[in-house]
Amino acid sequence: MSTAESRGEAQKKFKWIGTRPVRPDGVDKVTGRATYGADFSLPGMLWGKVLRSPHAHARIVGIDTSKARDLVGVHAVITADDLPEITPEEAKSGEGPTNFRDLSRNVLARGKVLYHQHAVAAVAATTTAIAQQALDLIEVEYEVLQPVLDGDFAQSPDAPILHDDLFTRGVKPQPEKPSNIASKIEMGTGDAEKGLAKADFVVERELRTAAVHQGYIEPHAVLASIGSDGKATVWCSSQGHFMIRAYCAKLLGMDASHIRVIPAEIGGGFGGKTTVYLEPLAIALSKQSGRPVKMVMSREEVFRATGPTSATHMFVRMGCTKDGKLTGAHARLEYEAGAFPGSPVGAGSMTLFAPYEIDGAQVEGYDIVVNKCKVAAYRAPGAPMAAYAVETVIDELAAKVGMDPLEFRLENASAEGTQSAFGPKFKSIGNVETLEAARDHPHYKAPLGKNQGRGVASGFWFNGGMQSTATVNIADDGSVGVVSGSPDIGGSRASLAIMAAEEFGIDIELIDPQIADTNMIGYNDLTGGSRVTFATGMAVIEASRQVIQQLRERAAKIWGIEADDVEWSDGQARATNGQSDLEPLGLRDIARKAARTGGPINGQASLTARGVGMAFGVHICDVEVDEETGKVDVIRYTTVQDAGRAIHPSYVEGQMQGGAVQGIGWALNEEYIYDSDGKMENAGFLDYRVPVASDLPMIDTVIVEVPNPNHPYGVRGVGEVPIVPPLAAVANAIHDATGLRMTELPISPPRMLAALQSKKS
Amino acid sequence: MSTAESRGEAQKKFKWIGTRPVRPDGVDKVTGRATYGADFSLPGMLWGKVLRSPHAHARIVGIDTSKARDLVGVHAVITADDLPEITPEEAKSGEGPTNFRDLSRNVLARGKVLYHQHAVAAVAATTTAIAQQALDLIEVEYEVLQPVLDGDFAQSPDAPILHDDLFTRGVKPQPEKPSNIASKIEMGTGDAEKGLAKADFVVERELRTAAVHQGYIEPHAVLASIGSDGKATVWCSSQGHFMIRAYCAKLLGMDASHIRVIPAEIGGGFGGKTTVYLEPLAIALSKQSGRPVKMVMSREEVFRATGPTSATHMFVRMGCTKDGKLTGAHARLEYEAGAFPGSPVGAGSMTLFAPYEIDGAQVEGYDIVVNKCKVAAYRAPGAPMAAYAVETVIDELAAKVGMDPLEFRLENASAEGTQSAFGPKFKSIGNVETLEAARDHPHYKAPLGKNQGRGVASGFWFNGGMQSTATVNIADDGSVGVVSGSPDIGGSRASLAIMAAEEFGIDIELIDPQIADTNMIGYNDLTGGSRVTFATGMAVIEASRQVIQQLRERAAKIWGIEADDVEWSDGQARATNGQSDLEPLGLRDIARKAARTGGPINGQASLTARGVGMAFGVHICDVEVDEETGKVDVIRYTTVQDAGRAIHPSYVEGQMQGGAVQGIGWALNEEYIYDSDGKMENAGFLDYRVPVASDLPMIDTVIVEVPNPNHPYGVRGVGEVPIVPPLAAVANAIHDATGLRMTELPISPPRMLAALQSKKS
Repeated sequence: MSTAESRGEAQKKFKWIGTRPVRPDGVDKVTGRATYGADFSLPGMLWGKVLRSPHAHARIVGIDTSKARDLVGVHAVITADDLPEITPEEAKSGEGPTNFRDLSRNVLARGKVLYHQHAVAAVAATTTAIAQQALDLIEVEYEVLQPVLDGDFAQSPDAPILHDDLFTRGVKPQPEKPSNIASKIEMGTGDAEKGLAKADFVVERELRTAAVHQGYIEPHAVLASIGSDGKATVWCSSQGHFMIRAYCAKLLGMDASHIRVIPAEIGGGFGGKTTVYLEPLAIALSKQSGRPVKMVMSREEVFRATGPTSATHMFVRMGCTKDGKLTGAHARLEYEAGAFPGSPVGAGSMTLFAPYEIDGAQVEGYDIVVNKCKVAAYRAPGAPMAAYAVETVIDELAAKVGMDPLEFRLENASAEGTQSAFGPKFKSIGNVETLEAARDHPHYKAPLGKNQGRGVASGFWFNGGMQSTATVNIADDGSVGVVSGSPDIGGSRASLAIMAAEEFGIDIELIDPQIADTNMIGYNDLTGGSRVTFATGMAVIEASRQVIQQLRERAAKIWGIEADDVEWSDGQARATNGQSDLEPLGLRDIARKAARTGGPINGQASLTARGVGMAFGVHICDVEVDEETGKVDVIRYTTVQDAGRAIHPSYVEGQMQGGAVQGIGWALNEEYIYDSDGKMENAGFLDYRVPVASDLPMIDTVIVEVPNPNHPYGVRGVGEVPIVPPLAAVANAIHDATGLRMTELPISPPRMLAALQSKKS
Repeated sequence: MSTAESRGEAQKKFKWIGTRPVRPDGVDKVTGRATYGADFSLPGMLWGKVLRSPHAHARIVGIDTSKARDLVGVHAVITADDLPEITPEEAKSGEGPTNFRDLSRNVLARGKVLYHQHAVAAVAATTTAIAQQALDLIEVEYEVLQPVLDGDFAQSPDAPILHDDLFTRGVKPQPEKPSNIASKIEMGTGDAEKGLAKADFVVERELRTAAVHQGYIEPHAVLASIGSDGKATVWCSSQGHFMIRAYCAKLLGMDASHIRVIPAEIGGGFGGKTTVYLEPLAIALSKQSGRPVKMVMSREEVFRATGPTSATHMFVRMGCTKDGKLTGAHARLEYEAGAFPGSPVGAGSMTLFAPYEIDGAQVEGYDIVVNKCKVAAYRAPGAPMAAYAVETVIDELAAKVGMDPLEFRLENASAEGTQSAFGPKFKSIGNVETLEAARDHPHYKAPLGKNQGRGVASGFWFNGGMQSTATVNIADDGSVGVVSGSPDIGGSRASLAIMAAEEFGIDIELIDPQIADTNMIGYNDLTGGSRVTFATGMAVIEASRQVIQQLRERAAKIWGIEADDVEWSDGQARATNGQSDLEPLGLRDIARKAARTGGPINGQASLTARGVGMAFGVHICDVEVDEETGKVDVIRYTTVQDAGRAIHPSYVEGQMQGGAVQGIGWALNEEYIYDSDGKMENAGFLDYRVPVASDLPMIDTVIVEVPNPNHPYGVRGVGEVPIVPPLAAVANAIHDATGLRMTELPISPPRMLAALQSKKS
């Protein structure tokens, strides 16, 4: 099923769903009118800067800020002492997983610095130069400690302990000695060992992946202004301004209602903007100085002091019968969390076996603290590395059995009713359909040249629901305002507008999608988990339907008939009581008379979205390996993915392409390179090598549409699935080209070359 | 009933209504953090300026803008040719009274200039200096015409006709010759002449008032930015950002949905900011230049080119029996509209006899165009002048009968059931209660000294309802966001917050009142007619009640009981099913669990408010007249007014004081002084004399509370009533002090002195 075909089918039923209107935010973004995080300024504004640790692990013996405070032009200097200390009891708040005690210490180190460039103090001054000078005048006395720079060492008995109060959770009885293993999780279905014992073939692999950064183009930036009434306004780009509000309130001991967060456009987030770094500091500096404070990270700070995703060390064993039926699987995942607990090992554990039906599958996951910056979410957090491990082993098993790797996957594919290893039985999913579409794609049969190889891999992501609020407001001229509180990081303005246009049956040009700040709309969870088109979309649809009901009632009032005798179709209210003399009334006609028929016409819906559509993708990757240099070129790439329903196919394709590209970068080039003291050596885009357009072929996309039965239009999330398969797809292609099973990422030219050379010798 | 007493009674019933919490916008306003119309800037912004006519009446023969266009730094030049011409058929739009053909020609003259400083062209340039230079380079050829500078001359057969296509409306048959009398209106109850014939005493007076300006401190200012996608954002202060959107859309031929208007704080409006001047020009200049354009009026421009209220010429005859019963009344009101039709003579005609029960009362009103700037609304538009006329005559009648003027008014006071002269029978009104409170006030019996006198006068205003939308959003920490689309010009943030706090039974500090821009909330009519606390208040109350219902349902869900078994009281959900072990749940408790009980908790209400509470005020004024200079000092002043219910008494008192002061200025000093060519000679606050603090005593206030039965808390509008009585109260006090009946305003020192001297001689 090609994209065009699936869309052809959709267009039979829909007027707007599945079409590609011009994006509502497009002109502003290409002409520079859109305002990003660093584009806000206020009169009297100060510039804030952060003093960062030169050590990866050290005790803070003392901080003397007096010289900095005395510098002319300096208006505020803060350290951890200026933030409320959060007790272990207060660390957890609300329903979310965030540990605010850790977050507070990540934002400003308290007692110890835990990674190179960990924030120690912050200043606000009239110019950036004075702020920098002030940082230089702050005297910090450190007692330098040995750094723990990888997860293996972290677990050794010789390793220094990062947190004296950290005892491994998930182990019974709970250990009495503190540990760098923050937690152990276990999950599974059936008995892995029994299953493996039944296998004719067992493949066991140990694999590693490096820490990689989301690589968003826009650095973190914030402008904060707090009045003497204690009411703050914060302008910043993030994946959730309600999250920024809640986190700042918690870290600063303020009421959330006293913080208004105004969302900027976001220049990329990919999960990395789901937490706070500068925002609480800017508010605290504004409070101390009585003036607005602006802070903008340098690229170096983004790399060194914000969260990449985990480096990992993984052990996978899987077995199958000689006719290719998986019998058992076991994985041990060790994910580095950085300086504080909280790697995405949980999601890695939950997703890795999801594409398969395996009676006995078990995972144990370890969350390990090390002296590196605290990891943050990164697109399908935790899943790509785990998929790399499993899909590598699947590739080997298929080869052992002598089956085509896609046929092997189809043979074992999870489907509706399959008991997953992470808990639920799958409901309607499009795993099989996606695998079939990949198998039937011309790419999969295309010939390969010398030094070329082809790899495939599957990927899975749950997708999120969570809370959304939307309002739909009819303007006095009948145009339709669609307001949500979800930052648009991947085209949600367009997808929400399309769904509203479909509901109303009117031209999409009449729909104006907007993102409201925290004080202007009801609560919204952050934009993440590929949830917005699904969940906020449901709220928009519900609010639209409320409005349409009102439009019917208003038309009935104008006509003097019953609302039951009015239907709404094709953008107009029509009388259905046989009174053919009643000319249909459009939105404009009804809106004009709103004052006399009951007032403004608006709808509002708030919900916790249920019934997320879990989704699968399959990628086909062709590579050519340069035997001389070890450079791997991706020469053809096809992504196949179940979108449920593609509301705006161009955006879905963009997500598929973007995810694939990030995954290819992860597979081939991206990595945090540290020196022996724990200092990142490649903290810039010249040395931290993300793929650019000239590195890649056009990424081909095939949208499969197995509608999610729980969404009015069948939407599944699409943003995260496509970063899951590439790591393995690339590695499997390299194996196909070279016969080499690469078990450590990135497969950068030196590593590839070394493998090629050791194969030769 | 004193304020304290009435509040004491209120406090027995209410927790927040009638209290005086700190205003939510206070700190921002006193510390300079609040942003007014001129406080917005954008990168690349141009400065716009307006070329204005040097003539009060002239035909535009030609405009040559070429030299201005060629000036380096000039990016846009517009004349009326750059705006769509609005046909007579398109002049009226929607349900409102605005004539968009006239408005378009007021914003930029087309064919003719009709008043001195009428806008002729506009430019946008990189600096204000270049913009000014560009104005000087625009060559306009005028054919100068004789100006029509007062309503009397306008009606004479010799007068030039301003508009060839203006034929008097309201006269049958419609005249065939164009006229400067735009319309005639007639209304009344019973037969005035028959009533007057029954009178023992008849007083007839001819009176005049001068044009006066609202005198808002903040000049008109706007920043507009339109993208190449035709979507404009406009920042400006106004009394209604939805009005700005609608008017700009109409004048520029745009869709309203393509204009987002972001409201600034407003530094005074008083009705004068209920229309557009600069806003459409700034959008048009931004469109032509492709850059943001900022425009700020000078004080001179505000006086000469925005709307003051009408100068008037009035004839009133009223009669009563010898025991003081009014028998008949007749008034002829001639109001100058300025250059285009639309004086507030209608409201003047409707309000002037409202305080009285008169069997035969008739009014005829004339709307007359003259070569002066087009009038705009000014606080109780049209009513103060008409009340000046009637209350002067009432004062004389009381004297003729030998009755105390307040007793005379009480004898004739309108009350529930009285047939008004403007149409409806009065419902519940507080006219009698207000008169009694004035009569019983110590001020009314206080002794007077030499050259001192005391006057009283009544005033009436309908108050407005119109359309409002409000949303109430519960934040994740349980604080309450109250969002409306009504600009706060007189404390509505505070009054809406108080009503919400009362509904929820929580601390007002937990309520965050906000004003949303046009794209963030449903439609709202403008802030005017003293409607916001009444109408938007009703929407806030309705939305709050929706939320409380949800809170009960959520608490029930948490407890696993029925919502009917949960009541909301004193800020908490309480189980009423006898399960005393269920600890009451507060907002924070319920909000924390919102995700699991159904999602965010919000309410939204939209309505056309019905059941406005009409309101009356009585003012007592003591003056001392300096016989040497003619200077009149107000030495004591008490305002008594039925507020229905004072939500935040300090604001109500502020409205009463502010209205009284503006009325005193109108009575004693303020006036537009024109030279013989129609050029205003006193276009600055040094020469146009508004009362300042040192001119006045503390204005005493007595709030009477006769609740409006149609509002949940009994609210009547309070903003406009207090400007209605002062003109007459001051004049009556002067009569009491001097025996002189002053029938022309302002009673400035020269005029008073002349009267004193002619009395002596």
